[in-house]
Amino acid sequence: MKVLALAFPGFTFIDLAGPMQAFMMLPGFSSQIVWQGKGIVDSDAGVSVQATEDFGSCWKDPDILFVPGNTRSLFKQLQDDRTLDFIAGVGSRATWITSVCNGSLLLGAAGLLKGYKAASYWYTREHLSLFGAIPTDARYVIDRNRATGGGMTAGIDFGLAMIGQIAGEAAGRVAELSFEYAPQPPFGTGRPELADPATLAQTTEIVKQLMPVQELEGVGARCRTMGRL
Amino acid sequence: MKVLALAFPGFTFIDLAGPMQAFMMLPGFSSQIVWQGKGIVDSDAGVSVQATEDFGSCWKDPDILFVPGNTRSLFKQLQDDRTLDFIAGVGSRATWITSVCNGSLLLGAAGLLKGYKAASYWYTREHLSLFGAIPTDARYVIDRNRATGGGMTAGIDFGLAMIGQIAGEAAGRVAELSFEYAPQPPFGTGRPELADPATLAQTTEIVKQLMPVQELEGVGARCRTMGRL
Repeated sequence: MKVLALAFPGFTFIDLAGPMQAFMMLPGFSSQIVWQGKGIVDSDAGVSVQATEDFGSCWKDPDILFVPGNTRSLFKQLQDDRTLDFIAGVGSRATWITSVCNGSLLLGAAGLLKGYKAASYWYTREHLSLFGAIPTDARYVIDRNRATGGGMTAGIDFGLAMIGQIAGEAAGRVAELSFEYAPQPPFGTGRPELADPATLAQTTEIVKQLMPVQELEGVGARCRTMGRL
Repeated sequence: MKVLALAFPGFTFIDLAGPMQAFMMLPGFSSQIVWQGKGIVDSDAGVSVQATEDFGSCWKDPDILFVPGNTRSLFKQLQDDRTLDFIAGVGSRATWITSVCNGSLLLGAAGLLKGYKAASYWYTREHLSLFGAIPTDARYVIDRNRATGGGMTAGIDFGLAMIGQIAGEAAGRVAELSFEYAPQPPFGTGRPELADPATLAQTTEIVKQLMPVQELEGVGARCRTMGRL
């Protein structure tokens, strides 16, 4: 199972970690971490990872293409034709096309979600429709060979579900116990409809500054001009 | 908030990621990833991280010392006086001494959990008593300045709880929504008492091969000989 994971500068660390921790339990797992250049790539969480391959050297036909999300760093990539063309190209050959959080915006801008149901970060979810996707309010969505997780921590639910999908439910059940995934969120505010008004208002204000969703219409127009959409 | 995270070869990737993703939301966050030598350290999940410091160059008095867990790679470190002495030394000066999963065995073998309640991976939890700790069946435990998470994915609950502890509950509530932490485990088998008998038997058999708990009495004896316990 060849897993090719994109790691752009500033990517959200947990977006990558949940899925990779699950994928590594798949039979014959091997991985490449890819960016425009090989070498150290900073995540958003004070940990840097190694891009083992660049866009030229990596697998052209992975079993799983995985794309994480982020705030400003993600929006920067949405303006980068090199990144989007790369995702579009590998995506056209990958067996599974996957993302977590607003990484689904990158899949969308690469033209890979047209007519597919997809999940995203709660703040960016509805904007998936700009790329022809069907925004879906679920922890994760598997629609044919497109598998997308919701925001950040949803990568764990997504990853475990993918084990079930690929290796069978018994393997998924074992993985979930191995992961000791019996969550107890300390505050109970993990979705907009669960959060108290003050928490929702404050978080929305922060996220609004960090995710310039007003740019997305322009991103969509550019993608159509470039023939990706 | 200076966070010093140990990354030994083969560490469990998600153990590091959940907590770091939370710590990065603390005021004045900065981090060092430390190992015996600087450079690339492989995790267990097909992603390598950069150790930015070695045992000599890193902060001596971090605000938070963090230690992840693993299977065989963790047990290897339990035999390494250099690692254990380092943890003991930094631990004697850190404001917070923390771990996720069976990283608490390393804290224990460094003599840092004597008389403290602590969490661990479900399979290793009871063995914490060999190091004078009080094994506690909780998703995370905060006992004075020792904060320990349960297995793997518990690092997210642990990290969010630490935000609440250090930056206040309002900050924790915002962080949990930012994390979109409204988990929906796909299989419902995330703890031994939740898992069906077949899943529990199979997982226990796997974990038993990977975590040689029979070595822990010897580890404890060595720690006493070395004056750590």
